[in-house]
Amino acid sequence: MNGAALIETRFTRAFGLRAPIASAPMAFAAGGRLAAAVSGAGALGFIGGGYGDAEWLTREWQAAGNARVGCGFITWKLSEAPGLLEQALARRPAGLFLSFGDLVPHAELVKAAGVPLFAQVQSLAMAREAVAAGADVIVAQGSEAGGHGATRGTMALVPEVVDAVGDRAMVLAAGGIADGRGLAAALMLGADGVLMGTRFWAAEEALVAPGFHAAAVAADGDGTARTSLPDQARGYQWPGDFTIRTLRNSWVRRWEGDMEGPVGAAARGAYARAIAEGDAEGAPAIVGEAVGLVERVAPAADIVARVVDEARAALAGGAARC
Amino acid sequence: MNGAALIETRFTRAFGLRAPIASAPMAFAAGGRLAAAVSGAGALGFIGGGYGDAEWLTREWQAAGNARVGCGFITWKLSEAPGLLEQALARRPAGLFLSFGDLVPHAELVKAAGVPLFAQVQSLAMAREAVAAGADVIVAQGSEAGGHGATRGTMALVPEVVDAVGDRAMVLAAGGIADGRGLAAALMLGADGVLMGTRFWAAEEALVAPGFHAAAVAADGDGTARTSLPDQARGYQWPGDFTIRTLRNSWVRRWEGDMEGPVGAAARGAYARAIAEGDAEGAPAIVGEAVGLVERVAPAADIVARVVDEARAALAGGAARC
Repeated sequence: MNGAALIETRFTRAFGLRAPIASAPMAFAAGGRLAAAVSGAGALGFIGGGYGDAEWLTREWQAAGNARVGCGFITWKLSEAPGLLEQALARRPAGLFLSFGDLVPHAELVKAAGVPLFAQVQSLAMAREAVAAGADVIVAQGSEAGGHGATRGTMALVPEVVDAVGDRAMVLAAGGIADGRGLAAALMLGADGVLMGTRFWAAEEALVAPGFHAAAVAADGDGTARTSLPDQARGYQWPGDFTIRTLRNSWVRRWEGDMEGPVGAAARGAYARAIAEGDAEGAPAIVGEAVGLVERVAPAADIVARVVDEARAALAGGAARC
Repeated sequence: MNGAALIETRFTRAFGLRAPIASAPMAFAAGGRLAAAVSGAGALGFIGGGYGDAEWLTREWQAAGNARVGCGFITWKLSEAPGLLEQALARRPAGLFLSFGDLVPHAELVKAAGVPLFAQVQSLAMAREAVAAGADVIVAQGSEAGGHGATRGTMALVPEVVDAVGDRAMVLAAGGIADGRGLAAALMLGADGVLMGTRFWAAEEALVAPGFHAAAVAADGDGTARTSLPDQARGYQWPGDFTIRTLRNSWVRRWEGDMEGPVGAAARGAYARAIAEGDAEGAPAIVGEAVGLVERVAPAADIVARVVDEARAALAGGAARC
């Protein structure tokens, strides 16, 4: 056993971590300060490169300082931004994380750089493709997750992915996990660790306006919806298989009930203003069903420590049942 | 510790079980022979009273013999069948299981009979309502589940329900659970046990035609869909919040792609014939995403024993990670 690890798995051994936890590379929200705080606490933090804004990325890499963090991108968007992946790899990230789209055109570059390739998948079929393309870590993401995702649930997806590719890649569970019970459950399902988005989105270090944080803390897990509405409002051309889970706030309810068609150009300005102003009714907080497990905004290091403590207690209690 | 229990929880203590496992009261598929086999193996078997066919129920209660089994009904349908609940309670079931609809009008009768009331819920709000109505066991069912259900995923729903009502009711996790890893994970999430449908649907004792069993064994978890199509084909008036998960076979794909509207009367006869004939392309097998974890049809007792062994191994391994 690794003396430093509080909960040891293949993932902690491979990345020298104290806990088998990674923070999701959430576009706009996961800046360098959050990623550095997560890594500083013994987990693995990721900067959310998202849609590939070079200026934002440069700033957030600086904010991460000397911390050993990874970086993630939206795969289909990366293809529209030549040079971006090379720039990220030049910074020697702890991992390069690709989600949503065909990673085959990019895998070779990541592998050639000697950087571990994380591939987030939403189905068994995608997991097989990602491992065939050389992914080192598969993040099996259930539909419970906040932000973009697809339809399969975490509970059955994770063990099925483990059975299919666990001999060739590590597997992290994502979607619906925000506390130590979820981490312990993921380990029981055969995962090597977890990726948490919503829980770290609600960290003090996340780039999230107070109004959105407050709305999320007040919400329960029944209060989210998976739609394409925010992407319509932002003018993003997401592939049809992927929708985005957010709080079902008054804005979402208004457009869900709208029979006149998609969110039009006139509404986009108001949406952008709501985001800029932290108006949680004018634009929805981007969180998953695990938001019901988030009781307060906390420093990332406290979140990591608490999740580890809870998971250790759950694991010890489970063994005592037999 | 209960000397007889192989994995002990509040649920095994309350019902005198060796394992914290119940079989789902699947309409048509969960007959008396399956329920009795599950109970005989130290878990808790349920007869699937479903839509309330009195003749079917009488036969299946006889098939259960002297085994201590429970019985389940579709709540909104029960309201259309006066006397049915009384008849079931007169048989002194080990539990009366209600799903899908307002259980308040029925709870008092169950409580007055001294029969434990199981309430299957698909959201936090429903869990609170069910406990307020007197439910003894809450089954928190995620969208992964086969058959009818709703939208929330198992992974976050279960711990949130445990936090909200776990001090007043026991909680079973359902949806996406088909092996011991799932049972162990559910215990980590704070559940007192699990309800498994798909895994027992694929038991030798289930009332399922060989053609449907074969289709399920061949399928993986990517191959299901949650739609209203089978209910349209059967002429059932299900409340809009509930859809049914089945394999996405050629019949489902044909109607998903149909732009002419709902499944019409002309298609209903063909659908009924496909069910009668065990034609797994003419009607879809009713299974959940955990179907990808089901490798073979097996006797129910073997399923219980294997799930327990797997869960004990997982729980022991988890504790060793700390």
